[in-house]
Amino acid sequence: MRQIPLRMIPLGGLGEVGKNMMVYEYDGVCLVVDAGLMFPENYMLGVDYIIPDLQYLRDRRRQVAGIVITHGHEDHIGAIHHLLEEVTAPVYATPLTRGLLEVKLARNGLLSKTQLNTVQAGEMVAIGPFQVEFFHVCHSIPDGVGLGIQTPLGLIVHSGDYKFDHTPVDNWPSDYAKLAEFSQRGVLALLADSTNAERPGWTPSERVVDAAFEQVFSEAPGRIIIASFASLISRMQQVVNAAERHGRRLAFAGTSMIDNAKMARKLGYLDIPEGLLVNLDQALSMPDHDVVIMCTGSQGEPSSILGRLSVGNYRSFDIQPGDTVVLSSHPIPGNEENVYRTINRLFQRGANVLYEAIAPVHVSGHASQEEMKLLINLVRPKYFIPIHGEIRHLKRHAYLARQLGIPEENILISENGQVIELDGQSIRAAERVPAAYVYVDGSGVGDVGPDVMREREALGENGIVLVNLTLDEKSGRLLKEPQIRCHGFMLNGEAETLMETARQRIIEKLTKAGANGNVEKQVEQLMRTHLYNETRRSPVVFVTVSRV
Amino acid sequence: MRQIPLRMIPLGGLGEVGKNMMVYEYDGVCLVVDAGLMFPENYMLGVDYIIPDLQYLRDRRRQVAGIVITHGHEDHIGAIHHLLEEVTAPVYATPLTRGLLEVKLARNGLLSKTQLNTVQAGEMVAIGPFQVEFFHVCHSIPDGVGLGIQTPLGLIVHSGDYKFDHTPVDNWPSDYAKLAEFSQRGVLALLADSTNAERPGWTPSERVVDAAFEQVFSEAPGRIIIASFASLISRMQQVVNAAERHGRRLAFAGTSMIDNAKMARKLGYLDIPEGLLVNLDQALSMPDHDVVIMCTGSQGEPSSILGRLSVGNYRSFDIQPGDTVVLSSHPIPGNEENVYRTINRLFQRGANVLYEAIAPVHVSGHASQEEMKLLINLVRPKYFIPIHGEIRHLKRHAYLARQLGIPEENILISENGQVIELDGQSIRAAERVPAAYVYVDGSGVGDVGPDVMREREALGENGIVLVNLTLDEKSGRLLKEPQIRCHGFMLNGEAETLMETARQRIIEKLTKAGANGNVEKQVEQLMRTHLYNETRRSPVVFVTVSRV
Repeated sequence: MRQIPLRMIPLGGLGEVGKNMMVYEYDGVCLVVDAGLMFPENYMLGVDYIIPDLQYLRDRRRQVAGIVITHGHEDHIGAIHHLLEEVTAPVYATPLTRGLLEVKLARNGLLSKTQLNTVQAGEMVAIGPFQVEFFHVCHSIPDGVGLGIQTPLGLIVHSGDYKFDHTPVDNWPSDYAKLAEFSQRGVLALLADSTNAERPGWTPSERVVDAAFEQVFSEAPGRIIIASFASLISRMQQVVNAAERHGRRLAFAGTSMIDNAKMARKLGYLDIPEGLLVNLDQALSMPDHDVVIMCTGSQGEPSSILGRLSVGNYRSFDIQPGDTVVLSSHPIPGNEENVYRTINRLFQRGANVLYEAIAPVHVSGHASQEEMKLLINLVRPKYFIPIHGEIRHLKRHAYLARQLGIPEENILISENGQVIELDGQSIRAAERVPAAYVYVDGSGVGDVGPDVMREREALGENGIVLVNLTLDEKSGRLLKEPQIRCHGFMLNGEAETLMETARQRIIEKLTKAGANGNVEKQVEQLMRTHLYNETRRSPVVFVTVSRV
Repeated sequence: MRQIPLRMIPLGGLGEVGKNMMVYEYDGVCLVVDAGLMFPENYMLGVDYIIPDLQYLRDRRRQVAGIVITHGHEDHIGAIHHLLEEVTAPVYATPLTRGLLEVKLARNGLLSKTQLNTVQAGEMVAIGPFQVEFFHVCHSIPDGVGLGIQTPLGLIVHSGDYKFDHTPVDNWPSDYAKLAEFSQRGVLALLADSTNAERPGWTPSERVVDAAFEQVFSEAPGRIIIASFASLISRMQQVVNAAERHGRRLAFAGTSMIDNAKMARKLGYLDIPEGLLVNLDQALSMPDHDVVIMCTGSQGEPSSILGRLSVGNYRSFDIQPGDTVVLSSHPIPGNEENVYRTINRLFQRGANVLYEAIAPVHVSGHASQEEMKLLINLVRPKYFIPIHGEIRHLKRHAYLARQLGIPEENILISENGQVIELDGQSIRAAERVPAAYVYVDGSGVGDVGPDVMREREALGENGIVLVNLTLDEKSGRLLKEPQIRCHGFMLNGEAETLMETARQRIIEKLTKAGANGNVEKQVEQLMRTHLYNETRRSPVVFVTVSRV
């Protein structure tokens, strides 16, 4: 009799395999790990965010035994409400992650319907045929966990996002002992975060940011404005500590920052001394030298507080000479232009700006190559499956694993939707399941796809030209001068002559040939050729015809 | 009597001050240094490239005494034909730069009309009131020069793009002696390249790429495909040298690569042993292990050869397992997504891919901080003007200069179009002159601007909805069912119901209220509200009306 295989299905990630969602399946029962969203690439026009393809789980809605969330970042929790609309299953998370989940579920009206379970690192929970053991990992948000998943075939270790920080801000290093214990029990497969697989060495400790902040706080002549992610609770703690040392008051600006800080404080993950925290209005009324403000916008998002400050349209205050602005973050690939544009604009407004390229005001939350090697050697898995990365990262992570003696045939590089099967004797790529990008645009989920994206691209690249014709229904005769409008094509003044000759061409054509056949198509073709010949551009041409 | 000031006007650069064009002006006579183009940022939809605003020179077309080109990269020569359409003046360049200019001018029918003068590094040329002395600098293209410009007020040093490479591929280091001599003569102002001002240390020598190539050529089991810029002549030489050492034949793929190699070879800047160069067809018929192919596409441009290879639609050949692909370049900010997408696709096709992040297959052509300090200390200028960089780079470069003892009041950070005046006693920012981005789109120069760009952005982000109404001219009565089409808005199937309800709303409105006033505006408004309420999206709505 053939052994029932263990199936592992990476589902979410924008080219990043299994980044936002992994499914573990045994004998038809599924365990979902993480439910995150992805931010669109530049070419995905108009898309707000992207969620994993839930088709596979939709088809198995009764067989999902549980959902485990490893930590509270958007790329791991941001699609939870979409998942819970498809699947009813208990959710397991550590206290801070649970807090962040609650905020999100409440906003989507799902909180009361969801069975949320708090787990602590070190605990074990039975979820279907899986015994899931949570172990603490350091990351750029507190309370992150990796998973030891005992399956009928053996023990699987799922790293989650992790780094081996010996001196984390919360003094809680990753759980080396648990990893060593897993190793003693024997690990069938390790699935590990590949984000920084291209980066040699060891990721610096979060503590190096303390030293950078110390210098900023010592030298800043006026206000200090620190931009970061709203979920970077440990960075908040570092700002609190520096503010306390230097006698500055701290104000958070922006709802998400304020809400997250409040929640983290309530749950004991953020320690703010009495009196240090003030609201923004109070901060702005104090002497500049006594104030530090924390806000969002470190990715240069135009609608964020920092984005608005950089162009001078933030409601509450303006950047002024003497301000020191710190971008305590790393530009997400694709955001570089926005980030650097924001930095340049802040300089133009007279601020001194500090950012990763010129000061150690940020460190990565992900392991670098030496940490990856340590994890592999601590765990000594039989099979190795690099996840959480683009193919280039997975390839590099696999290369590291081979260097450590994992045989090539025991390493599998997968793709989203590519089922991985383990039967205890071998690892193999099984069938593919649906794993498209599901675009969320406005209130629509999945109603824009690659075709719509291509249409948007053509509209955006070239603009449009609209032609409206009024024809006699019987004779096909042109009853009125053709109306022509353009938008996003060229400056109106420049377009006038061009449109006038186009109008003449249309009249000529319809008079000569008569309006037979598909007038719309003919006029479209005529316009396209004319406009291309005159301008070497290809606007999207639409012809509407009123036949009366 | 007031001293006639020396005026310096940075004109070109996409946020990079004076990168593509600098004007030196004395007593109404202008010397133009460089005439380059810029590549558009991601948000500049449909733009092919950007040229400096030539208005200032157009207004002084008879007063331009000469045009000096420092080196042959596109961002320094790419707008030469646009400049020469406005201004008639002799052009001065070193032999390789001249060769590249000739190719460009021939393509635009301007070669015979242009007075091209070859200069050699070390020579001096009188251009109006300026004595221009050319001195050799290392950069990622051979034959680059910086300028010593003797003016009636004193000596100005213009660095051009430079690095201090002690072991350049062509064995011709930057001219330290000339810089020291300038210093002895006394330098009024230094204008220096700030590109890498954020980078500590010293840029590695081009030679480190030799070692990386040596490893690639030793280990590659099959074909080697090296992508780089077509103008990176020194990188071609390095590939030639490695191919020769390892007994591989070299083929160039793509017209620009072939043309530039031919020209560089003819002028003696590229040394290819007899028999080493084969054409692409020959190379493809040889054993994989005997071949190296050089092509363009290192920025992930979808239309480039590497871009087409990555998606499997390059005419001549396909990527196959065993191929080693090298991206010998640095992703230009804004291109990261394209570059990494290309790398991932090449991996997917079975190639091994090497790129800057994981192997030293590229080094920068620009000086890092220690070289910048060396230049300042070699030259010891009275005034320092950082150029060739965004504000963040200029600020950093200025910070370095202050560390070396240049007083703050002797440093000026300018912007494009911001005239800098030196009167021998002080430096000051004078008036602003036109310095917009001039977009080139198809055959149009400057006929798309920020307004058109905003229209394109709205079209691309949201798509469009077109409504065509046929009304009775007198009564305003609706004569036909409203026609509604959408494009780039949502999948057609999904849109049907939505459009049906929209149609009913329009009929209702026009029946109830009658078609009075501005029907177009009213229906536009109605549609916008309806679509936003139903979808939370804001497509661009166009209403055309035929009144019969």
